[in-house]
Amino acid sequence: MANKSAEILCIGTEILMGNIVNTNATYIARGLANLGINVYHQSVVGDNPERLRDSLRLAFSRADIVITTGGLGPTYDDLSKETIAGYFGRQLVLDPESLEKIEGYFRRSGRQMTENNKKQAYMPKDCTIFENKNGTAPGCAIEQDGKIAILLPGPPREMGPMFEHCVLPYLSRFQDTVLVSRNLHFFGIGESALEARLYGLMTGSTNPTVAPYAKTGEVMLRVTASVRREEDAPALIEPVIGQIKELAGEYLYGIDVGDLQTAAVRALMQKGLHAATAESCTGGLVSKRLTEVDGASRVFECGVCSYSCEMKEQLLGVRHETLAHFGAVSRECAREMAAGVRRLSGADIGVAVTGNAGPKASEEKPVGLVYVAVDSGRCREVLELQISREDDDAREYIRTIASSHALHLLLKAANEY
Amino acid sequence: MANKSAEILCIGTEILMGNIVNTNATYIARGLANLGINVYHQSVVGDNPERLRDSLRLAFSRADIVITTGGLGPTYDDLSKETIAGYFGRQLVLDPESLEKIEGYFRRSGRQMTENNKKQAYMPKDCTIFENKNGTAPGCAIEQDGKIAILLPGPPREMGPMFEHCVLPYLSRFQDTVLVSRNLHFFGIGESALEARLYGLMTGSTNPTVAPYAKTGEVMLRVTASVRREEDAPALIEPVIGQIKELAGEYLYGIDVGDLQTAAVRALMQKGLHAATAESCTGGLVSKRLTEVDGASRVFECGVCSYSCEMKEQLLGVRHETLAHFGAVSRECAREMAAGVRRLSGADIGVAVTGNAGPKASEEKPVGLVYVAVDSGRCREVLELQISREDDDAREYIRTIASSHALHLLLKAANEY
Repeated sequence: MANKSAEILCIGTEILMGNIVNTNATYIARGLANLGINVYHQSVVGDNPERLRDSLRLAFSRADIVITTGGLGPTYDDLSKETIAGYFGRQLVLDPESLEKIEGYFRRSGRQMTENNKKQAYMPKDCTIFENKNGTAPGCAIEQDGKIAILLPGPPREMGPMFEHCVLPYLSRFQDTVLVSRNLHFFGIGESALEARLYGLMTGSTNPTVAPYAKTGEVMLRVTASVRREEDAPALIEPVIGQIKELAGEYLYGIDVGDLQTAAVRALMQKGLHAATAESCTGGLVSKRLTEVDGASRVFECGVCSYSCEMKEQLLGVRHETLAHFGAVSRECAREMAAGVRRLSGADIGVAVTGNAGPKASEEKPVGLVYVAVDSGRCREVLELQISREDDDAREYIRTIASSHALHLLLKAANEY
Repeated sequence: MANKSAEILCIGTEILMGNIVNTNATYIARGLANLGINVYHQSVVGDNPERLRDSLRLAFSRADIVITTGGLGPTYDDLSKETIAGYFGRQLVLDPESLEKIEGYFRRSGRQMTENNKKQAYMPKDCTIFENKNGTAPGCAIEQDGKIAILLPGPPREMGPMFEHCVLPYLSRFQDTVLVSRNLHFFGIGESALEARLYGLMTGSTNPTVAPYAKTGEVMLRVTASVRREEDAPALIEPVIGQIKELAGEYLYGIDVGDLQTAAVRALMQKGLHAATAESCTGGLVSKRLTEVDGASRVFECGVCSYSCEMKEQLLGVRHETLAHFGAVSRECAREMAAGVRRLSGADIGVAVTGNAGPKASEEKPVGLVYVAVDSGRCREVLELQISREDDDAREYIRTIASSHALHLLLKAANEY
């Protein structure tokens, strides 16, 4: 049996009007790609039965599987289930088990269940029902004449877990092969420079494939093998990872590690180290990112966001002469901030950022000039960065890149400790 | 002339594969909605000429205007311009002005222009060219037989400004009426509760319309009038704003103010006040949000992120007995943190957050229990919040909601100062 193809059809006037970003399509697309299911089209249509029917007919003329999101709510304008069941000539019938779960959901959340919520327990006849653990609307799959319609709720926090725990296992039954991926995370090298180094490998590999994904200031390489059984994947993937390490290993900061903050927190945990942050232009972004990671409290001591010069002196012990002579945006100030927060907190490693995130030049220092420092007692390092970007988002961009450098320095210092 | 309809067609395999979120569609959809142009379909198709041609044919069978994004890059797989020009039977011809601008772009950025970048200066014959100020690929509009194709680059930071500064003015020529909106920002009331209060007004109004938009922990109401001339809008909009204020004014924190952090920074500026933050479970998120706002340095003194109890005592002067008796997640600790950071920094207003963002209960305090405090010398207030959510994103959700409450308390304290 060949791998199937799918389309994603998101239903909701609020997406058409641009009121919400369609993250559902991205989430589902990624899951299908991992499963090896080809997706050639995504579409969005409003809560309109006629247009929905047309879109459904078109989608099934091009693909085996159509996955819809949205329109499963309790109100009169939620029409996906009715319309799609009608498309397949099926009735909606009350599913007692779903009704019980909806009633239980309301009991647990202490809210009153209204009559229209009952509508959500009526499901297309003979469908496969997917339980909704984060809301009231169940999802379902309808199989007919070699086609499959999968109906999922619209809210991402309901759709995501249902897709992960119900839809992926359901769909994997139809696939001959599974895709197994490992993600290699790089920092300090651009996407095109990394591609240049790995060009032969990337264009020459078919199984596994090697594909780059850029995100702000970072590059991820995904190595993906297509195998019959998951346990066959390492034999294909590991040698390619070895080659990548040989060609660009100095920029690789982790494998399957998610992001810089997770890598940094894990490295600190592993060594039993504590860190502290001192921030100026990033305004708390470094500590915010570190404390996103579950378990950060075991390794993160404190963060000081010293926006004014007085606070840099008073709290972090940056010397008055340093500020007077070199200014707050200086190599010297960054170094003293890192040392200062380390001393103040008693942490093993202090990391500091000071710079000008714009929009205006200050102290005659250009926008985008940032100093990032780390101090672990054993090692001290200061980086000078000139981060350029000429648009409305420049401020957030500069702050994000600067915070990534700080996390990367922290990770390095932890690894070398 | 009636208002036109449009479709959005995003081109890019990376969207189909779920590697990037399609924020372009949202951005364009919102702009078209503001212009009063109806959008009934959005679609995504890969970098494949045949499927692109089919999608284009379908889109033009349903709409007057098709706006595409992506596929204008310099490499061999960027085929949008060729394919769409071909659809209209037009040649690509070298546009000397575009070539000059591309050359200038490379000169300014100090990079070498490669031969394939020249491809970007070839434009469909007799099109309207849109300059790209943030990249090399120009956009364009092709008008033929009452249909309009608008081709935009894929990177959001190139697409967005081009859409704003070139496409919106271009399209507004075709519209009889303009839409003028004002955004009312609410905090502390849910979307359904706000709808219940304003039900009659929302369902009874046609010009202006009143529509709610929920974002994490906040609700925005958009009041939109359709008028021939922009200056006619206030006479329609202002009376409705007056009615909304009467019905739910106590939750309205600002009009056209963007978000809580911008409202807080503006209020502080207006009164010439300084603020400081003390954070535990939010880990710097409050200071991060405040310092997002351009000009924050004039009102923000410092932020202390005291993750450990020692730091709460040592830096913020929280009393040892308070921590021993009530714990770090307590009303008393929040109050002393706010007072402490105010004292430490000399700021007029101190705001503090302490709580348990999960994933595990700590000090026998449940996940989601958060205390938010403000201290302005003149007024002191502590809120107890129990923020619930049962999914993988619970931690970030709790932190976001907690930080919003902190910003709201700060805004209130500044307004009442």
